Amino acid sequence: MRAVRLHAVGGPKNLTVETVDAPVPQPGEMVVRVRAAAFNRRDVFITQGRYPNIALPAILGSDGAGEVAAVGDGAAGPPIGARVIVDPMLCWGADPRVWGDDATILGMPQAGTFAQYVCVPARNVHPAPEHLSNESAAALPLAGLTAYRAVFTRAQLRKDETILITGIGGGVQTFVLLFAKHIGARTIVTSGSDEKLERAKALGADVAINYRTDADWHKTARKAGPIDVVVDSAGGETFARCIEIVRPGARIVTYGGTTGDATVRMFPIFWKHLTIMGTSMGSPQDFASMLNVVNAGKLEPAVDSVYDMENVAAAAEAVERNTQFGKVILRIG
Amino acid sequence: MRAVRLHAVGGPKNLTVETVDAPVPQPGEMVVRVRAAAFNRRDVFITQGRYPNIALPAILGSDGAGEVAAVGDGAAGPPIGARVIVDPMLCWGADPRVWGDDATILGMPQAGTFAQYVCVPARNVHPAPEHLSNESAAALPLAGLTAYRAVFTRAQLRKDETILITGIGGGVQTFVLLFAKHIGARTIVTSGSDEKLERAKALGADVAINYRTDADWHKTARKAGPIDVVVDSAGGETFARCIEIVRPGARIVTYGGTTGDATVRMFPIFWKHLTIMGTSMGSPQDFASMLNVVNAGKLEPAVDSVYDMENVAAAAEAVERNTQFGKVILRIG
Repeated sequence: MRAVRLHAVGGPKNLTVETVDAPVPQPGEMVVRVRAAAFNRRDVFITQGRYPNIALPAILGSDGAGEVAAVGDGAAGPPIGARVIVDPMLCWGADPRVWGDDATILGMPQAGTFAQYVCVPARNVHPAPEHLSNESAAALPLAGLTAYRAVFTRAQLRKDETILITGIGGGVQTFVLLFAKHIGARTIVTSGSDEKLERAKALGADVAINYRTDADWHKTARKAGPIDVVVDSAGGETFARCIEIVRPGARIVTYGGTTGDATVRMFPIFWKHLTIMGTSMGSPQDFASMLNVVNAGKLEPAVDSVYDMENVAAAAEAVERNTQFGKVILRIG
Repeated sequence: MRAVRLHAVGGPKNLTVETVDAPVPQPGEMVVRVRAAAFNRRDVFITQGRYPNIALPAILGSDGAGEVAAVGDGAAGPPIGARVIVDPMLCWGADPRVWGDDATILGMPQAGTFAQYVCVPARNVHPAPEHLSNESAAALPLAGLTAYRAVFTRAQLRKDETILITGIGGGVQTFVLLFAKHIGARTIVTSGSDEKLERAKALGADVAINYRTDADWHKTARKAGPIDVVVDSAGGETFARCIEIVRPGARIVTYGGTTGDATVRMFPIFWKHLTIMGTSMGSPQDFASMLNVVNAGKLEPAVDSVYDMENVAAAAEAVERNTQFGKVILRIG
């Protein structure tokens, strides 16, 4: 089969398309013929060597949509030929509150979705939402799962509340916006790009703030509040400012720290009885619930662009530039 | 009546004992004849000018035990002469998750317990635990309430878990230790004083670490773990280290920041799915539940020392030096 492989770190340009053996399902596993995959920041971090425990060579890719191609002994799930998507969270563990020691994410070390075939445990294979194309369905798994857990399982956002979504544009944050609007919550988004802010408004964002042209963006956000919930993956000063501006009793969810460490004042944390929640990926229950919400609302993931597999390096460089709004998709021929 | 008043900030020495009018209960209020009061860090911070919205002159003191002396119209509660303690949290509000905008703490601006008589809403007056002297009962309210909410309402500590209590010795942390031991949890305490660590061990602490002689105290604590819950009021580097050493899924509760801002890495927060919870004081439900636990376990608060009211400045200086283990009590003649 054709597959995207990484043999050495050094950036997106090191991603190469090669011919390798197709996987054979073991008992309890399924092989999915991938028709579309999606990029996550994780894939780019791995090419750059900025990810823990990198093992190479590897087939990257956590997100995939396609059809069931082969079923191992005793594997229960959708039948051969069924349109499916793959939950990239492998071996979450027994505790819904936190992943276990054996948890891993599909796509390094286990061969991922940037290939014509991917082999996963049958319990990770779910029917694809009928209203979505393969390209749009491939946008769902990792980002939708992370966003669902952040918004609902962790922050427990309610429809009468206001959520601040910092740095709109990435895959997860666009899903946070979709989910928040779906339940009727009020949304404040920030970005350094007016174009991304316009696209967020088109998706229903109520307030849009450009942090490059508004140095006091956090004060502007506070005035547009009161802010009940924040979902952030910037960390650093963004995270520290969020602690200052939220209302008493607010919940702040973090799933990343792209701008580095945060120096925070303790006083607003305890005086306002804040709750700061870390999250990463999500449990099998989270994934099933996320699919239910997407199906119930016929939600359409934001797709930035679609690349053919042969142009995988260009696709990864687009993610590296961080100019996208929504997911960057890889069409698998 | 005789009362301790503060006319100007400038430290504990500015506390003076004066004769002032005794309070008269308004409808819904009760006047308590105070027999013993207790110091909190808050009282010393106010004398130092390190507290928000200081209004002077003021009678300080949040904690008091004594007898009901007078009852206003329509005030339901313990009868005149009953031994009582006072919940210092005034006007918490309707939301058990966070105090409301009108919430205040007894003892500045409202006249506090460092006086022969204190007037409070009747709903703040509770029967004193029968097994406690006035001095021990006075140790309970603010510190016991803060500790109860931190351990149970916020962290939801369970008996099969391990809790790290940083900086044992202060009033709240000694209650955290008492409550944790009461439910059978495993406890790790830290202090810069071997004497405080010995006293903590006498109260049942399972592991005691001196952070002055063990520069890598946090690694020692991690080895003694895994740590499920932390209760901290130091902030700063202590708080940052706690984030590094707790187990996945851990809860870290903060109710103070005596050592300043904390510079934290985002990665362990989201990768370990941590929950960081701020807390301050507690709701009426928390206070009632705290009393239930103290009564059920016949728990005995740690009392460091007892001063006569006339020696209030010396008592406050003892708290300022931070050498105490447990509460510093003021006996009201």
